[in-house]
Order: sequence, then structure tokens, then C-alpha cells
Amino acid sequence: MSKVLVLGHKNPDTDTIASAIAYAYLKEKMGMDTEAVRLGEINNETAYALDKFGYGAPRLVSRVSEEVKQVILVDHNERQQSADDIQEVQVIEVVDHHRISNFETADPLYFRAEPVGCTATILLKLYKENSVEIPQEIAGLMLSAIISDSLLFKSPTCTDQDIQAAKELAEIAGVDAEDYGLAMLKAGADLSNKTLEELISLDSKEFEAAGKRFEVAQVNAIDTDDVMNRQKELEPLLERTIADKGLDLFVFVATDILNSNSTALVLGKEADTAAQAFRTELQDNRLEMPGVVSRKKQIIPVITEAFKG
Amino acid sequence: MSKVLVLGHKNPDTDTIASAIAYAYLKEKMGMDTEAVRLGEINNETAYALDKFGYGAPRLVSRVSEEVKQVILVDHNERQQSADDIQEVQVIEVVDHHRISNFETADPLYFRAEPVGCTATILLKLYKENSVEIPQEIAGLMLSAIISDSLLFKSPTCTDQDIQAAKELAEIAGVDAEDYGLAMLKAGADLSNKTLEELISLDSKEFEAAGKRFEVAQVNAIDTDDVMNRQKELEPLLERTIADKGLDLFVFVATDILNSNSTALVLGKEADTAAQAFRTELQDNRLEMPGVVSRKKQIIPVITEAFKG
Ligand SMILES: [Mn+2]
Ligand SMILES: [Mn+2]
Repeated sequence: MSKVLVLGHKNPDTDTIASAIAYAYLKEKMGMDTEAVRLGEINNETAYALDKFGYGAPRLVSRVSEEVKQVILVDHNERQQSADDIQEVQVIEVVDHHRISNFETADPLYFRAEPVGCTATILLKLYKENSVEIPQEIAGLMLSAIISDSLLFKSPTCTDQDIQAAKELAEIAGVDAEDYGLAMLKAGADLSNKTLEELISLDSKEFEAAGKRFEVAQVNAIDTDDVMNRQKELEPLLERTIADKGLDLFVFVATDILNSNSTALVLGKEADTAAQAFRTELQDNRLEMPGVVSRKKQIIPVITEAFKG
Repeated sequence: MSKVLVLGHKNPDTDTIASAIAYAYLKEKMGMDTEAVRLGEINNETAYALDKFGYGAPRLVSRVSEEVKQVILVDHNERQQSADDIQEVQVIEVVDHHRISNFETADPLYFRAEPVGCTATILLKLYKENSVEIPQEIAGLMLSAIISDSLLFKSPTCTDQDIQAAKELAEIAGVDAEDYGLAMLKAGADLSNKTLEELISLDSKEFEAAGKRFEVAQVNAIDTDDVMNRQKELEPLLERTIADKGLDLFVFVATDILNSNSTALVLGKEADTAAQAFRTELQDNRLEMPGVVSRKKQIIPVITEAFKG
């Protein structure tokens, strides 16, 4: 059988990288020839996790069809978040925890999505269902993924299953989830070495709803003012991205990981629609989002509903 | 929590009915208030299975949004195969074994699709994963579903998992899978009491690919001549369906369940494209399909590929 690439989404976060590694390993143990790859740069948080558990980053690719016929997607399903040439290969499996959209196949496939906080939580089940033991360093990466996606269990996306999975994985990995987790999140929230371009693209995802195209970028920070103080430099960059990609809306979210609040910069011709969706008005293009930390659960559905009318 | 309806596809087959019943029961045991419903008439084969295992048919509905806010789909995911108002409710779970298409959600959900021969095979796993015991009569219905979808294990869609699941279910149900299965298939292949309208709608599904809309109906027969002898009466009916629904193609397939061959009537402006896709030509609108028994695996992907060019 020829090789199958296992890939997460563009602008990879810790879950996408850890899940690509963990699922590629599991499928390899089940007899498939796999390789984990990534579609973008490793962020500070993920670099911290990889370093901590002594694991190398997956190989960087942007296209896949020149080297394989089949791929497995983890932590995403929407085609605009995947490899540029995803339509030219066969997706044989998906393991994900996001909404399903812009995804279709000609043939039946294995598609395992569950409404939990992290792909790694589902992968832990798959390891058990297939009776494969999790190596210590992969358990550490999977734990890192859960901590990252759940903001150390504080996000509303975090379920009991995620907390339970993190407990089991921390034990295998031999670390204290809280201590290690806070250190990892802080490493990720260190934005001092980031250019403005990096800030808006590090963890950014494109979406479509009711014919509108929008992008939502999110950065974690210890102090959101560090980010928002750069508003006047950020705005022209966002405007250019909107023009280049033909977007209707760009929402740039800075999340205070210690207090679980967010502030967003909102630009594009649907900016007011977005603000209204959050039952408030833009002040100098800014939107205060108290209690909001989850793009998936607290931002995307709200904007999607607003567009669908 | 308010009630959740569990529904299979339009023109229900045995898997759709059995899986709606079996999954509604499982979710009920897991604490959800559920009711299995159906979107169309019970066919002869399913009636035989329900009668054999002493189970009543689920309630018939065409719309769902007047009575519930949330539904679970089994044995399908494409919206045109679902309730007419499926867009007006939230799909909270899907358990299926078909390609994924025309499906999207605003929120994450539980979506469990596997490339096996029958939804009931996946449901057996879910019963085990949740440690719920399968009642004898539901095991009998799930076995019936596997026999139906796999044409007694002869379809190329049938996997080792389906065969293994059927074995376990036959044991719980207390029947001989082969003997019971052949009797059930024969009951389903008795077309003598069917009107022409029923023949073309009993097990018919609509699809879309590359902007083309097509419908593929399939009937099982002991002797396909019984069906094909009515070609001259069938054609005007198919033409009318094409016109009414604005289809580009209608493929009416009669499958010889004893010898595993099919003959199709092919009409619509894309009829020649379809014939070419099967590397043959239409003879008097007929297409011989030796060895073809599976719409899902041997017909839909071939037509889809042809349309995508
Ligand atoms: Mn994730
Ligand atoms: Mn089925």
C-alpha cells in the first residue's frame, strides 16, 4: 500500500500538530504506511510542547497530490483550511471536533467527529478501541493539545471527556497537567518576537456561511493590551488581507488566557453585522467580548447565525 | 431535555428502519428522550423483518421541525435524502456508512461514519462502547439490516466487520442468518403487488455531482425480466419524474439477487454520459451491468466521476 499523509489544518495549533503525530503513529501500528505533515509554521506554544517531550516537528508541505493519492485529515474538515490541492486526493479518514462544512466525498470513508474540546481526546479513544499503547512522548503531546484547545480546561468547549482524557494522558506522560499546562500556555502567549503579519496569521481560519466569507484570527495573551496597542499598525494589514482574499469580514481576537476575556478588532463590510450579532456596537473598530475564549463555540456560530439571517 | 427524533432516509430500506429503531433505543438507554420515525412506506422486505421479530414500524412523518428542535440521522447524511425541513432543525448526531455530501452544520456534532456495509454494523460497536445490552428483537432487526444492505454478504460493500457483526447478532436473535436472510430477501423481491410508481420509488435516492442532479432507483428481483418486461410502461413514468424534478439523469436498476447482476433503464439528457462511464452503450435505453449489485459502491462513484470529468 502506498503512503498516506496525515495532516491538520493550516496555521497549525498544538492540537493539529499533536493529533497528526498521534494518529499517524496509531495508523502505522495498525499497518498503514503513514507520515504526519504540517501545513504551516510551528507556533511558540507547540514548539514548547515538542521540545518538552523531545519530538521533532512534522515535515512542512503545502501541496500533497504530487506525493500521495490518499490523505487523512485531523482537527479539521473544511477544504479551505486544508492543503491547497486537497480536492485532488482522496480523503480516506477524518478525525475532528469541529462543525462540518465544505466537505464532501465520492466514496464512503471513516469520519469520526465528536463534540468534545480537542481532537486528541477522540484519539485517546481510538488508541483504546484498537488496543494500541501510547508512547510517553506522544501522550505528552496529546495532553498538550487538550490543554491548548481547552485553555487549561477553562474554555466552554471543554467537556468532562477532555478533563478525564487529560488526566490519563498526564499520568502516562509523567507531568503535572496544571503546572506544565500553565508554562506551555505562557510560552504560547509570549508575542514579543512576533511580527504583525505573524500575529494575524498564526492561528487564523477562514469560514463561509450564507455566501459570506470571513476569517477569524485568535492570539492568546497574558495582557491583551500588548496586542491591542498595535491596533493602528494592525488595521492596514487586516484591510489588505480582506482585499487580497475577497473577504466580507475579518475578526482578530486577542484572548486574555488568565481572565478568560477577549477583545477583537473587527473590519470588513460585514463588521457591523458581526458587532450586532454580539449585541453590541463597535468602538473604534473594537469589540469587547467578556467571557469569550472559544472561537469555535462562542464566535463562529454567532457570526454564522447572523449571516444566515 | 426535549424529545429528539431519530430518522433514516426517504424511501426507507431495512437498514434505515432497523437503525432508527436500534439507535433510538440505545440513546434512550443512555438517557436521551428519543423516538424513531420514518420518512416513507415500509417495503415488503422490511415488513417481513418487523413481522418476524415482532416489532412495530416507526411513526411516519414528512416534516420534523413542528415537533422537535433536534434530530439524529442514521443511514444517510445528504439533505435531499432527509426530512423536507431538515434545514430548520439541529442535527446533533449522524451514524452512517455513505459518502458525505450536501451536509453542513453550524456547530460541532457527533458524526460517526465508517466505510462498512451497513449502519447496523456501526451501531453494534456503539452498543458495545456504551455497554448497553441489545434486546433479542432489536438484534434481529439489525441482522436483517446487514443481510439487506449486503445482499446476504454478496455485495462488494460487505466487509469482514459486517460478516462478524451479523454472526454476533444472529446468535442474540436466535436465527440462522443464511436461512432467514434468503427468506427475507425473497419477501423483498416479490414485486407482484407493486404498481409501476412503487417500483421506481421504493428504493430511490437523489444525488448531486458537479452541478448535475440524478436519481438512482434500485429493486431486487429473483428474475429481472419480471421488471424489465414492463420497460415500455416504465419509461414514460421515468420521463415524467425527470421533468418534474428537473433531473439530468434517472437510472432505474433491477438487481438479480441470486446471480448478483443488474440491468438498468437509463434516461435523461446525461444518459449517454452514464453509459460511457460504465464503458458500454445503451441498447434501447438499457444498460447491462454484470457483477453490479451495489448502488453505493459500483454505481454512484462511477457516475459522480463521469460528471466531474
Ligand atoms: Mn482542535
Ligand atoms: Mn444502509
